Amino acid sequence: MLTDPTAAVIVIGNEILSGKVDDQNARYLIGELRGLGVSLRRIEVVPDVVDDIAQTVRKLSGAVDHVFTSGGVGPTHDDVTLQAVAAAFDMPTARNAELEALMRGRWGAALHARDLRMADVPAGARLEYGPGGPGSTWPVVVVRNVWVLPGVPGIFRRKFEAVRELFRAAPIYGRALFSRVDEAEIAGALDETVAAFPAVDVGSYPQSDPGPHRVKVTFDSRDRTALDGALAFLAKRLGDAVAKIE
Amino acid sequence: MLTDPTAAVIVIGNEILSGKVDDQNARYLIGELRGLGVSLRRIEVVPDVVDDIAQTVRKLSGAVDHVFTSGGVGPTHDDVTLQAVAAAFDMPTARNAELEALMRGRWGAALHARDLRMADVPAGARLEYGPGGPGSTWPVVVVRNVWVLPGVPGIFRRKFEAVRELFRAAPIYGRALFSRVDEAEIAGALDETVAAFPAVDVGSYPQSDPGPHRVKVTFDSRDRTALDGALAFLAKRLGDAVAKIE
Repeated sequence: MLTDPTAAVIVIGNEILSGKVDDQNARYLIGELRGLGVSLRRIEVVPDVVDDIAQTVRKLSGAVDHVFTSGGVGPTHDDVTLQAVAAAFDMPTARNAELEALMRGRWGAALHARDLRMADVPAGARLEYGPGGPGSTWPVVVVRNVWVLPGVPGIFRRKFEAVRELFRAAPIYGRALFSRVDEAEIAGALDETVAAFPAVDVGSYPQSDPGPHRVKVTFDSRDRTALDGALAFLAKRLGDAVAKIE
Repeated sequence: MLTDPTAAVIVIGNEILSGKVDDQNARYLIGELRGLGVSLRRIEVVPDVVDDIAQTVRKLSGAVDHVFTSGGVGPTHDDVTLQAVAAAFDMPTARNAELEALMRGRWGAALHARDLRMADVPAGARLEYGPGGPGSTWPVVVVRNVWVLPGVPGIFRRKFEAVRELFRAAPIYGRALFSRVDEAEIAGALDETVAAFPAVDVGSYPQSDPGPHRVKVTFDSRDRTALDGALAFLAKRLGDAVAKIE
């Protein structure tokens, strides 16, 4: 198990950038990855352009532990993800016999020659079924640390759920403190907290609703003791300015 | 007026990547930019890390006509966007006298020394007020083609609305055709349509709801004649398989 795993999500599709479809998959993964203890470092939404996707995949594959792509894996002209992932790693694409057999078994005579494009994957790809093993689910195509998932949200979730336990890591804990006073008044105390607790990620977010909570200060860490220590440290520094602690 | 302007959005903030806050600003800009006739080419969500932000700003500033950043402009330790934009262009930051005067005029004695950090902008920045001019609104800090906007959604929208007409371009038209049959069956006709109408962006999206509409085919173009031509071309090729045209 990686001790501090990181991830990135690449959402592929002109339909998201042009506003025809609202992204659901990156938003879903944000919550899932947090729950798994994986730090999400970057989300990129890119068009259906092979070079763009390939460059993004290459860059992020080298920068984080796990990369997830969403979209672009169907049988039509705008489905270029597998080709782009192959290009990212200077691999050819090749018909995957295991995928082809699965597709023929599932669709039989209803299978179009065109559908088999979906079995043309990067030559270095492997198929991952998750803890349930073959037969439990449709496999995910994986190239190095890049997990290729489809754009249709229901299928995206089903495929991710099959493999999700492969990514589980030590939990990331989170707590929050609400301040009655504005950010500028607590900024000095925040600086001291950040300096004293390097293992804790401290965030400061002004609240737009009028009310007693002017700022929400968040604390995130894998180290529960450091987390509680940072919260107590700031609470003591702020005194009466603390409206609420969660 | 640019004839085919392009844009990118950079959402800055650990709070989005860790799922504490749901992004609203990129989603808002997707719709606004489409309405303005600006092609959105990329969205990147990045953490509050100066180097990450700076590299992303530099890359996207060179790749598209307009870059919009969201977030990281308050007075606390995690507000590093202005510093990162300066680093992207190898500029120092400097106290902007016009911004400082505006802040002193607005907040007077309630202004904290710390708040003035928000007036420390890249040395090459300019202030843009939009068509209303100074006095009509709070200005947007702009460095080259990078428009720096705040993360709080209400303020983000108010500031964008003040300058939005500066970005207006020729409209992008959109239409759609729904197919009764699956993607693999129409993929050949789609290829022919794409080849015959290079000025039209054609998208193909399987519909997950069971029903008569198996695939939504979208057509986007600035050229209305080409758009209608592409739609008519595909409709003729598909014949009875067309369930609906919009």
